[in-house]
Amino acid sequence: MARKTQIQNIAIVGTGVIGASWAALYLARGLNVIATDPAPNAEANLRKFIDAAWKDLEVIGLSPNASRDHLQFTPDMKKALSNADLVQENGPERQDFKIKLFADMDAATPEDSIIASSSSGLTMSVMQSACKHPERCVTGHPFNPPHIIPLVEVVAGAKTSPETVERAIAFYTSIGKKPIHVRKEVVGHVANRLQAALYREIVYLIEQGVLDVADSDVAVCWGPGLRWGLMGPNLLFHLGGGQGGIQHFMEQFTGPMAAWWKDLGTITEFNPEVKQTIVRGVLKEANGRSIAELERERDSMLLELLTTRSKAEKTVPAGTDAAAD
Amino acid sequence: MARKTQIQNIAIVGTGVIGASWAALYLARGLNVIATDPAPNAEANLRKFIDAAWKDLEVIGLSPNASRDHLQFTPDMKKALSNADLVQENGPERQDFKIKLFADMDAATPEDSIIASSSSGLTMSVMQSACKHPERCVTGHPFNPPHIIPLVEVVAGAKTSPETVERAIAFYTSIGKKPIHVRKEVVGHVANRLQAALYREIVYLIEQGVLDVADSDVAVCWGPGLRWGLMGPNLLFHLGGGQGGIQHFMEQFTGPMAAWWKDLGTITEFNPEVKQTIVRGVLKEANGRSIAELERERDSMLLELLTTRSKAEKTVPAGTDAAAD
Repeated sequence: MARKTQIQNIAIVGTGVIGASWAALYLARGLNVIATDPAPNAEANLRKFIDAAWKDLEVIGLSPNASRDHLQFTPDMKKALSNADLVQENGPERQDFKIKLFADMDAATPEDSIIASSSSGLTMSVMQSACKHPERCVTGHPFNPPHIIPLVEVVAGAKTSPETVERAIAFYTSIGKKPIHVRKEVVGHVANRLQAALYREIVYLIEQGVLDVADSDVAVCWGPGLRWGLMGPNLLFHLGGGQGGIQHFMEQFTGPMAAWWKDLGTITEFNPEVKQTIVRGVLKEANGRSIAELERERDSMLLELLTTRSKAEKTVPAGTDAAAD
Repeated sequence: MARKTQIQNIAIVGTGVIGASWAALYLARGLNVIATDPAPNAEANLRKFIDAAWKDLEVIGLSPNASRDHLQFTPDMKKALSNADLVQENGPERQDFKIKLFADMDAATPEDSIIASSSSGLTMSVMQSACKHPERCVTGHPFNPPHIIPLVEVVAGAKTSPETVERAIAFYTSIGKKPIHVRKEVVGHVANRLQAALYREIVYLIEQGVLDVADSDVAVCWGPGLRWGLMGPNLLFHLGGGQGGIQHFMEQFTGPMAAWWKDLGTITEFNPEVKQTIVRGVLKEANGRSIAELERERDSMLLELLTTRSKAEKTVPAGTDAAAD
């Protein structure tokens, strides 16, 4: 392909928590970052966020050229984009605003660069609709916070070229992210839908009085959840099938599962009572621990788990190749 | 209460993989185990299983009196139960067989002992129906394998006494399990329903061509799944709500989630094509790694995660108290 393959200069548009987290990650991977945001204290807040995130990134591991000195900030978006190989956009989630923003970014960014959006609520087909070069616009939706959680959902809009999808996936992979190719534009992309599917049954069981809130958390985090951070459900069922693997699982265990499917809750809203039950239950479960304490607890365990995962990836002879097909 | 509170002698009825795994766990927790099973090679297979499981149990940590020498085996069920403080039943999942088995166990076990069933497919109300002392019969359903995964689902039948539920929960807690109180008998208990809810959306997205199989695994195990083995969804959403915690989350984010609920797949069976797609996709994802290799990979990561979790429990000043209410 004629386009440049080396991505070294990243522009971050919008430096709220998502944009700031992306900026920290890109710096830790040895890239140059130029960030832009119109808010008054944007640069100071950004640098503060990155300093805090840097401790976690040191645990995860810094790339050879990683440096916070490779960050520039300008309130002038046009200037920020003028030399970008890849733009990571994190603007407000309003449709009109976003279409205009994409048109402006498109005009200010070199034609052979990628413009990736962190949007969770809008489709690329809509966002790219007023661009002159919509083929290089793609959704690259992270799972929060992007500097820690590897998943990136890559979704094309109607006018996005297949080459852009390939380049985005190759780029994210090259910096240690785990991109997936979401092949159709669906509401919520994928990870949010999966969270919602799991939580729907939890809310249903709480609402029905089957479980209290704390027990519903135990049911996940001391049960099947222990494995969901190690391997995905399909591969786990391959092992659940014993020596016959996934073939045996599909023959033997899909009948009972389909029977459970028929009995699952089908609620489509949170009623006010269940909201109150959940709020009360969570505060009881937190048992006096502050949000900050719980965050530290979660994140220190998460960093250990990521260390375990990355060690396993290095020792396994033949790795999976999810992103490359 | 008048009944004995100290549980020291465990009887294992049925020594297939679930029963053998329970036996290994109870031995590792310093208890006496007497196992019974009518199958010809049952004792040899049981001892072989326990020897293999013991390595993992050493990593998790053995209790002071842990010893494989505290295992006895007899093909005579009556003898096995005659002095049991708690029976853990793991027989075949056929209703008629199970009702008869419970009546026989009930007749052979001291009246003040607990009879707990590992059944996933039958309700205690049915199983206890021919017992003279049904009040001490309770479901204690593990998540496989019980010697590693802490979750136990405790469910009363119609005739089970509240005291039995309390005693079972206290006992499982005392040996490091994480019991939950499932307050109504529902199909699949809880953990299997939650697995099914998550997997339904995965199968739907694969069927719709939104994701390939490997990417659907990445979406879980490099995304939200990374946290589901650390904390449950409710507590995670407490942190997802920022400084406003779960109250803010319930005000702000339940609207979008309910919108996703309305769009989730509602399939009630596995069609033959999606089964084939999943089989092919999993074999591709396994990429030549054998079932045994993948199991080793999963289990070594799992033991590290459990070590991380148990370290965190010890350092956190105020622990949650899920099982005790």
